[in-house]
Amino acid sequence: MPQLRLALAQVNARVGDLDGNAEIALASCREAAARDAHLVVLPEMMLTGYPIEDLAYRASFIAASQQAVDDLASRLDADGLGDLVVVVGHLARAKHIPDKLGTPKNAPTNSASVIHNGTVVTRYDKHHLPNYGVFDEFRHFVSGDETQVVQIGGIDVAIAICEDIWQDGPSAAADAAEAGLLVVLNGSPFEAAKDDERLDLCARRARDGDCALAYVNLVGGQDELVFDGDSLVVDSAGELVARAAQFEPELLVVDLDLPAATAPMPDHDTMFEGLRVERTVVSAEPFAPYEPQEPTVAERWDDLGERYQAIVLGLRDYVAKNGFTSVLMGLSGGIDSTLVGAIAVDALGPAHVFGVSNPSEWSSEHSRSDAAELAERTGLRLDTIPIAPIFDAYQEALKLDGLAEENLQARIRAVIWMGLSNQHGHLVLACGNKSELATGYSTIYGDAVGGYAPIKDVPKTLVWELARWRNAWAGERGEMPPIPENTITKPPSAELRPGQLDTDSLPPYDLLDAVLDAYVERDLGSAEVIAEGFDAAIVEKVVTLVDKAEYKRRQYPPGPKISKRNFGRDRRVPITNLWREDL
Amino acid sequence: MPQLRLALAQVNARVGDLDGNAEIALASCREAAARDAHLVVLPEMMLTGYPIEDLAYRASFIAASQQAVDDLASRLDADGLGDLVVVVGHLARAKHIPDKLGTPKNAPTNSASVIHNGTVVTRYDKHHLPNYGVFDEFRHFVSGDETQVVQIGGIDVAIAICEDIWQDGPSAAADAAEAGLLVVLNGSPFEAAKDDERLDLCARRARDGDCALAYVNLVGGQDELVFDGDSLVVDSAGELVARAAQFEPELLVVDLDLPAATAPMPDHDTMFEGLRVERTVVSAEPFAPYEPQEPTVAERWDDLGERYQAIVLGLRDYVAKNGFTSVLMGLSGGIDSTLVGAIAVDALGPAHVFGVSNPSEWSSEHSRSDAAELAERTGLRLDTIPIAPIFDAYQEALKLDGLAEENLQARIRAVIWMGLSNQHGHLVLACGNKSELATGYSTIYGDAVGGYAPIKDVPKTLVWELARWRNAWAGERGEMPPIPENTITKPPSAELRPGQLDTDSLPPYDLLDAVLDAYVERDLGSAEVIAEGFDAAIVEKVVTLVDKAEYKRRQYPPGPKISKRNFGRDRRVPITNLWREDL
Repeated sequence: MPQLRLALAQVNARVGDLDGNAEIALASCREAAARDAHLVVLPEMMLTGYPIEDLAYRASFIAASQQAVDDLASRLDADGLGDLVVVVGHLARAKHIPDKLGTPKNAPTNSASVIHNGTVVTRYDKHHLPNYGVFDEFRHFVSGDETQVVQIGGIDVAIAICEDIWQDGPSAAADAAEAGLLVVLNGSPFEAAKDDERLDLCARRARDGDCALAYVNLVGGQDELVFDGDSLVVDSAGELVARAAQFEPELLVVDLDLPAATAPMPDHDTMFEGLRVERTVVSAEPFAPYEPQEPTVAERWDDLGERYQAIVLGLRDYVAKNGFTSVLMGLSGGIDSTLVGAIAVDALGPAHVFGVSNPSEWSSEHSRSDAAELAERTGLRLDTIPIAPIFDAYQEALKLDGLAEENLQARIRAVIWMGLSNQHGHLVLACGNKSELATGYSTIYGDAVGGYAPIKDVPKTLVWELARWRNAWAGERGEMPPIPENTITKPPSAELRPGQLDTDSLPPYDLLDAVLDAYVERDLGSAEVIAEGFDAAIVEKVVTLVDKAEYKRRQYPPGPKISKRNFGRDRRVPITNLWREDL
Repeated sequence: MPQLRLALAQVNARVGDLDGNAEIALASCREAAARDAHLVVLPEMMLTGYPIEDLAYRASFIAASQQAVDDLASRLDADGLGDLVVVVGHLARAKHIPDKLGTPKNAPTNSASVIHNGTVVTRYDKHHLPNYGVFDEFRHFVSGDETQVVQIGGIDVAIAICEDIWQDGPSAAADAAEAGLLVVLNGSPFEAAKDDERLDLCARRARDGDCALAYVNLVGGQDELVFDGDSLVVDSAGELVARAAQFEPELLVVDLDLPAATAPMPDHDTMFEGLRVERTVVSAEPFAPYEPQEPTVAERWDDLGERYQAIVLGLRDYVAKNGFTSVLMGLSGGIDSTLVGAIAVDALGPAHVFGVSNPSEWSSEHSRSDAAELAERTGLRLDTIPIAPIFDAYQEALKLDGLAEENLQARIRAVIWMGLSNQHGHLVLACGNKSELATGYSTIYGDAVGGYAPIKDVPKTLVWELARWRNAWAGERGEMPPIPENTITKPPSAELRPGQLDTDSLPPYDLLDAVLDAYVERDLGSAEVIAEGFDAAIVEKVVTLVDKAEYKRRQYPPGPKISKRNFGRDRRVPITNLWREDL
């Protein structure tokens, strides 16, 4: 059987940075050529970054993206890499523009171009456009209606983009076209356990199509999304051949023995399930035989580790891609801000992390000492600014009491953080967790301020688990565990009035998080949640809290999605909403 | 020709309030019956409110909505209104559930049920699902594949829902089905001059289908959207017969002479352009002849008036539907907060509007006197709380300067407003305009705080125009113009440092707004904007400001859309975005 050395370029692209992304593509191709690869595949929309949202409509951006592909082809050729076949994802303009209201302005497509000998030899446009969960691709793209099969070294290679293999269709087309390899370009965001789902899918599609399948994914953070890499290759029996690391860039090089292209059946030349099959021959002769290398299969993070690393990467990239070099957060000594502090140190290094302790009259001694211990363990910088004189100045004028007085303290702290942010250029981090965000257990314009919210998709019970995981991971490596033990074990409190505990206002967190999982992540109605065995009064309380807190969530900063359904792109509900579940 | 008395119920539904909306439907039907109507048509999704966003997935909500239709049918019959034919929009579940990844959970449909004699005699599911601009209907609904024709009083009546008549298709099906009347249920949000566009469309579809067309729209505010009503009827020649008021509920009753149903052509019975035509006979005999009434055509607001009234309605409904009774805003004496004050008084009455003046060291004398004059002219309540002692307490600890010091003042004010809001239950209004929001010329967690932002879709030049319009409108009615003349004529300033003017940081507003119109509303690239005759340096400055301010816009409160492209549902761009237009 003909041989093929395939390189999957798992890269960290930046949305809108056409020049920088082209440099990354070029560097990947140079490395692939140095490692004697025949074919390089780069991820979905790699030249533009992904998702670009409504930037898709901008004529200037579409034109620049198409130019970037041509420039990449020329530069590869000028560098003596014209022989290398390169498949790269980018934004383009539809070949046929539909005359239909609602066609996205300027008819953008989510495309993959095949580059060889200094030119684009063919282009595939994504056929299936996901428009659910975090995706809005019907809004942004025109759907392609052709399947592309490219003969490389005497092997037929079919192309698909991401959703195309989740839906039935193009892999069936690859089968019909009798391709030996299906390459799939992806911008597939992380969520817990998605790697397992991906491998199963790829194996199934490979078996269905009776062809090897190579899956290459982006890596890196983009606003709410974290692309986890996890690029992989399976053979035509669905067996895993090679797999790249999670959460870091990698050039995954794999040697494959693939069936030689055969003359396709006549009816396969034209149409299959509504898709026209278009064939391009780059090279019909097999490549010269060579000694294959052993493929690599990277080790996986465990279930907690992958979520922790997703958050670290999401934060690091949000900071770097938005031009910041340092972060600032309030450190109360509580578990949420302490975990965020540890994550920030992992993402940016301790010299770039600034904590501020703002004790009030109601702050316990352990609040201060626990925050100080975090600083000592991690090396982050901690400053202390008491709020009493400012609190008194407000109260002289306002004389607030009750909840208004509690919120005042949280807002004074926020003004201090934002002042320091404006003065010194730090990005402020919001430290709220998903359980708080769900129930509205936070002060808007108080502890909710910030440019990024690392743990907003982490339920409180998972906050504790991640803290323990992080300390255990340090232990395994003989390092100092960053998180003070007392911070993990003490009962949670907002410390906005004497003796206050979270459980004064909320059910115990293990119970709360179980109800939230049913109501928010699984979208069950109250009656269905109760049918799972929860107390009706608690369900009613939690559901009411969630429904009433939507206005706070709308003004909350973005943070990395790690669950099946995050607040933000995944769960979009009205603020004005009088629907209340009857019990 | 057979006669038909048709009633279009332009009603203000509330999202999620099934019971309340059913009461509104029932009241409309009672009034229609009292006025001897044969057929009542209620708007799109009227029983659930619109848009319901991801509430569409909730099985309990779908079931409750379907139950609400059945209950409405029973109650109408019990009230002796069984003879009346009622068409009402609601959420339902697809009759055939597609087995396809990405099918919305629980297969919701955007449906219209026909009620007669206590039962639902047939149901139409919206066929064309808009997924552009403010709409996400591919995300939320399964598309219907049948056209419904219902014979009422010997007249064939076809049904369509909103987008169905904007796209080619179902009105053609109505034509093929030889209907005498097409009734269209709508949830069509306001934007400037949309009423003209709507009338043209309805006239064109009526002529195309050779049938009269009755268009009924929701009225009222729902988060960012304002439904303006503007229900109308055109005859088969496309001539306007009757039209309801803008921005208020109305039962529009119209007498029509319509062609008698004929036996349809055999090929029209089954399929037309992929849609199956389903026929239901409610009553084949013409109604007894009667003396028709003169139809009414409501007066239209002019171009400025309709935008002003849209904002008033949006604010009034956001406040009421979210359970508030009063609003609070900072009153600086500047034109933005003054216009918001006047709008709030129009929406809620002066007793429900609370202004706070927070003078600083840099506040001019006219700031205080202009705010006081607004209070005097409108009757709103004005309190004054100077910020100097609080500012000093912060600066004792922080020693900020420059922009950080300017922002500190804005944030101190915000904490005061939020404290008063928490203490007294007022909804805080953010007073920023669209030009500020576009350029980031505001302090996040400062003047940007609030639950609702009435003028966020109003460019600064339009702020002045609306202020003058409002004063002139008062003049026409012999009332006191609410807005002090000096507030309109003085140069705009944020007053955060001595002698500061907006033009220190921004181009003159007439120029700025023209560039923003090209870049934001029309989505042109920089080169295209410059090609329209603008100075390159100014375009580059404005474009850079807009691109960098996305993070602020994400945390800004919702406000009513009045333009073709608002910040929010209409314009969705990444925060992390390195695309910069080359010049």
